[in-house]
Amino acid sequence: MAEKLTGQTIVFQNPPRIISHASVVGKDEGKGPYGKSFDLVYDNAKCGKASWEKAEKKMVSDAIELAMGKGSLAANNIDLLIGGDLLNQIITANFLARDLDIPFLGVYGACATLVEGMALGAALLDGGFADCTLIFASSHYQTAERQYRTPLEYGAQYPPYKQWTVTGAGAYTLGWLGGEVQLTQATFGSVIDLGVNDPNDMGSAMAPAAADTIIQHFIDLQRGPQDYDLILSGDLGEVGKSLLIELLLEKNLSVKKKLQDCGALIFKGLKGYGAGGSGVGATATMLGSMLIPRLVSGELKRVLLVGTGALLSPVTVKQNESIPCIAHALTVEKIPGG
Amino acid sequence: MAEKLTGQTIVFQNPPRIISHASVVGKDEGKGPYGKSFDLVYDNAKCGKASWEKAEKKMVSDAIELAMGKGSLAANNIDLLIGGDLLNQIITANFLARDLDIPFLGVYGACATLVEGMALGAALLDGGFADCTLIFASSHYQTAERQYRTPLEYGAQYPPYKQWTVTGAGAYTLGWLGGEVQLTQATFGSVIDLGVNDPNDMGSAMAPAAADTIIQHFIDLQRGPQDYDLILSGDLGEVGKSLLIELLLEKNLSVKKKLQDCGALIFKGLKGYGAGGSGVGATATMLGSMLIPRLVSGELKRVLLVGTGALLSPVTVKQNESIPCIAHALTVEKIPGG
Repeated sequence: MAEKLTGQTIVFQNPPRIISHASVVGKDEGKGPYGKSFDLVYDNAKCGKASWEKAEKKMVSDAIELAMGKGSLAANNIDLLIGGDLLNQIITANFLARDLDIPFLGVYGACATLVEGMALGAALLDGGFADCTLIFASSHYQTAERQYRTPLEYGAQYPPYKQWTVTGAGAYTLGWLGGEVQLTQATFGSVIDLGVNDPNDMGSAMAPAAADTIIQHFIDLQRGPQDYDLILSGDLGEVGKSLLIELLLEKNLSVKKKLQDCGALIFKGLKGYGAGGSGVGATATMLGSMLIPRLVSGELKRVLLVGTGALLSPVTVKQNESIPCIAHALTVEKIPGG
Repeated sequence: MAEKLTGQTIVFQNPPRIISHASVVGKDEGKGPYGKSFDLVYDNAKCGKASWEKAEKKMVSDAIELAMGKGSLAANNIDLLIGGDLLNQIITANFLARDLDIPFLGVYGACATLVEGMALGAALLDGGFADCTLIFASSHYQTAERQYRTPLEYGAQYPPYKQWTVTGAGAYTLGWLGGEVQLTQATFGSVIDLGVNDPNDMGSAMAPAAADTIIQHFIDLQRGPQDYDLILSGDLGEVGKSLLIELLLEKNLSVKKKLQDCGALIFKGLKGYGAGGSGVGATATMLGSMLIPRLVSGELKRVLLVGTGALLSPVTVKQNESIPCIAHALTVEKIPGG
């Protein structure tokens, strides 16, 4: 009966299209190599709001408004919102959804949240349950730092391999008409935990989960790295990216020339960002502002986007647990002739 | 194209069945009127573990093991796990999924999480993306209380309309063969916030969201209360339940004789439980241990299950935000001749 499932991989019968999208980022992300590609760069972390949490919501709200505008979509054109973020009880997403009269599904996969939501949104379209879904996700350096680590006012010092949470939000509308990019397959990952317990080293914790999902995707579709122009991971950073290359090489999969990482790219060339960016904002903004333009231009034809998530919490860290991780993969392709 | 969507309501073409299920609860829930119906009652809040958080995970683990056993299902029979809970970063669900080598999707809809997951799990089956999904959710009085309110050791006093978080976990396998109950429609709700800002009064906050989704469900399917033997809400408690009856009466929908609430029922007759139970554990345990047996016996034929969620966090309460709420509805029916 599950005619669209092979192993862990869903093959969409009617591949949903990304109709429109928008990415908004903070000041520091705006200084990076993709600064001019984002739709909106805020000049301060509070975005004119009274708290960082309200600022994060404002970012998502702007991204959604921009994406809907680009697709000429009104709220009544959208059947379902799917979104999440890194804050406790995904309050950014919940409070955002309060302002829109659209049915809402909250999802949580840490920094894999965007890809989880995109895969679900695409499946609901292909399954005949919706004609248009809007997927969004966000992270914010200041809200994440005070929740996951220490209040910034403490001035804590960090190891050089630390990653920096991206301040950014992305919104994507999926549907049948318009756009030049489509989603053709999705692989949902299992939770993998090889025992890394340093919450500053999430790249190393997540790399095995990314490897597991990529390998499974290749097995299910009888493909390999040669079938993709690019494998784009979420937020492994430089350390996790190197580890992923090694892990895949152990399985005779050479991805060194094919692998890039949203977190490693977003702050590239800037000083003081350790191993790069992290947070679901990395994937949520780089998919739209870096990847889709390269697909639209024809430079890339088929890309495997691999959202990576570290499923820890400050409570589990204090209770001496290691860090369970997950990765979900999505094939993003230029529409032939599109 | 969205041939299975009417308004906000999904109509399953091939209604997925609940193949097997299990509910486990804490000591106090075991003393309530449904105490003998649960599959397992723990005699202490730590379930033999070192922390309440680990205890909550143990409960989910037991519920899943029992549900899989009753359905004669092994991990490799299950295509997808979908689950969530009330803890920050849904750590119960994430750490549970770590122990199972099954693809996992984390969801968060506060106390509507179970119904959100069931509706998604059913849609993925009907869409051809899975043959078997396992949905789970949990809450735990001690873990929730110290996270959302104050550490129990402080001995805080509460208003009489307060609800008490249910210590309980439920697991449900959905598929095509076996079972006597099927899921025929699902209505995903929008986020509603009428300005209630007392985190002890979540029943009043959630009732308008429940009313909105129920009304939408009736409009979409051209049905009314007369088409259901029972409308079962999640965790409105006695206060929220009364308010929901009033809100629906304003729309000429009389549900007084048709409406029951999992939270109001689970502690019924016990002293000291304010307006009743709350938490996703209420729905997650009462669906399996109270509702399904009444459907199987033929006492009920068609029920509207309405998961209700208050999407607040301690941070939003401190930032003087009111409480956004959501409700998702699922039609649960006895299989004709089943």
